[in-house]
Amino acid sequence: MMRIDVLTLFPEMFDSPLSHSILKRAQEQGVVEIVLSNIRAFTTDRYHKVDDKPYGGGPGMVMMCQPVFDACEHIIGQHPEPGRMILLTPQGKPLTQEIVRQLSCEKRLILIAGRYEGFDERIRLGLGAEAISIGDYILSGGEIPALALIDSVVRLLEGALGDECSAADESFSGGLLEYPHYTRPEDFRGMKVPDVLLSGNHSRIAQWRKEQRIERTRQLRPDLWQRLQERLDEKS
Amino acid sequence: MMRIDVLTLFPEMFDSPLSHSILKRAQEQGVVEIVLSNIRAFTTDRYHKVDDKPYGGGPGMVMMCQPVFDACEHIIGQHPEPGRMILLTPQGKPLTQEIVRQLSCEKRLILIAGRYEGFDERIRLGLGAEAISIGDYILSGGEIPALALIDSVVRLLEGALGDECSAADESFSGGLLEYPHYTRPEDFRGMKVPDVLLSGNHSRIAQWRKEQRIERTRQLRPDLWQRLQERLDEKS
Repeated sequence: MMRIDVLTLFPEMFDSPLSHSILKRAQEQGVVEIVLSNIRAFTTDRYHKVDDKPYGGGPGMVMMCQPVFDACEHIIGQHPEPGRMILLTPQGKPLTQEIVRQLSCEKRLILIAGRYEGFDERIRLGLGAEAISIGDYILSGGEIPALALIDSVVRLLEGALGDECSAADESFSGGLLEYPHYTRPEDFRGMKVPDVLLSGNHSRIAQWRKEQRIERTRQLRPDLWQRLQERLDEKS
Repeated sequence: MMRIDVLTLFPEMFDSPLSHSILKRAQEQGVVEIVLSNIRAFTTDRYHKVDDKPYGGGPGMVMMCQPVFDACEHIIGQHPEPGRMILLTPQGKPLTQEIVRQLSCEKRLILIAGRYEGFDERIRLGLGAEAISIGDYILSGGEIPALALIDSVVRLLEGALGDECSAADESFSGGLLEYPHYTRPEDFRGMKVPDVLLSGNHSRIAQWRKEQRIERTRQLRPDLWQRLQERLDEKS
C-alpha cells in the first residue's frame, strides 16, 4: 500500500475530493493511505504564525522554515519508509505523465502544499525536496496541485480503477494525444459518427485512430510533436 | 460579479475546496458566484446513464452527447450572459497565466468537467467549446482541473485577495519564474538569508531579484526561456 502524506495549512480542503470516485475507492480498498497534517499544528509561538514578511521587501507573505521543517520531521518519523518529498510550487519541474508513472512506483510520497508562492527558499534547499509544478499558472495554494498529483498517481496504482476502465491507451502514452471518441447514438442532431468506427474492421479502425492521434498532436500541440521527433531522432 | 457554472457528475467533490480560503471569501463578498450542476440530472433514460461504450471498441466509457447538451442549454438559459464555454480535457490547449488573465475578464464561464478522457467528440464540436488542459498528465475526471481553473481566475478578480497579498509580482509575469523568497529568521539551522536582502539597498535588491529570475528560468525552465527570447526577437 502506498502512503501519501500531505502537509498543508488547509487539510479540510481535501475532504470532499478525497471522498468521491476513484480516490474514495482506492482508500477504502487499501490501495493507498492518505494522511493529512496541518502545518499550523507545528508552530511554536502563541499566535500559530506560519508566515512572515519577505526580507528585502515586496508584496505577500513568505512561509517560514520552522513549522514546515518540524512538520516534516514529525511525519517522517511516523513510518519506516522515508518517502519522496515534493514541494508544490510554480517554480518546480512541470509534472508530466512520465513523472506520474515514476511516482506511482514509490512506496511513500510526502507532499508539501504551502502558499503557492512564497516558501522560504531554505525549505526546498534544507529538506532536499523536489519542486514540482502542475502548470504555468498561479493558484492561491498548493492544495489543488497536491490533489491533481494524488489523483494522477493513485489511478495508476494496481486495484485503483477496478474493472471499470483501463489506465492504458490514453493521452500522452507514446507522447501523442488521444484519438477522438464517439458513443451512441450514431447520429446526434445531424452530427454523425465517422463511418470507419462502424465498419467492424479492426485494423482499419486502429489505423484511423493512429492517424487521428498524429494529426491532433501536430495541430493542437506542436510542442509535443517536436519533442517526439527529437526522441525518435535520438534513437535512430 | 463573475458567474462560473460547472457541469459535473460529482458536484459534491467541490464542497470543501470552494468553502475555504480565497474561494470562500470571494463568494461571500460577491466577487464570484459559482453554480454547480449535475449532468446526471439531465439524463432522460430510467437508469440515468451518462456514458456508453466507444464505437470502434477499446477500453473505458465515453460521455454521451445528450445529457451534456441538455445540461448546457439549461444553464445557458438561466442567465443573460451567454458565457465562455470550456471543456476540461488533456487534449486541450495548455492553460497558462496569460489565458487565466483573459478568462478573468469574462462575465461568465461555463466549465464542463466530465470523465477526463472520453467525451464524445461531438460535445466539443457541437457546443463550440474551447478545450483546455491543465497539464500533460491524466486525471480521473475534470473536477480537479475545473478547481484549478476557478482558483487561478478568481484570485485575479478585484476584491478577491483583499489586502493580504498582491496578484502582481509573481511567477510568469514577464515570462520569468519568481525570485527566491526569504523570511525570518536570518539564520535557520546554519542556512543564511543572502546579505543583499538585508542591505536595505532597494536598487541592489531589485537587481539581485531580476538576476535570480533570469538565472532560475534559464536553469529550471529552458522552454520558458526560449519562448521569451523568441518573443524579444519578434519585437526587435
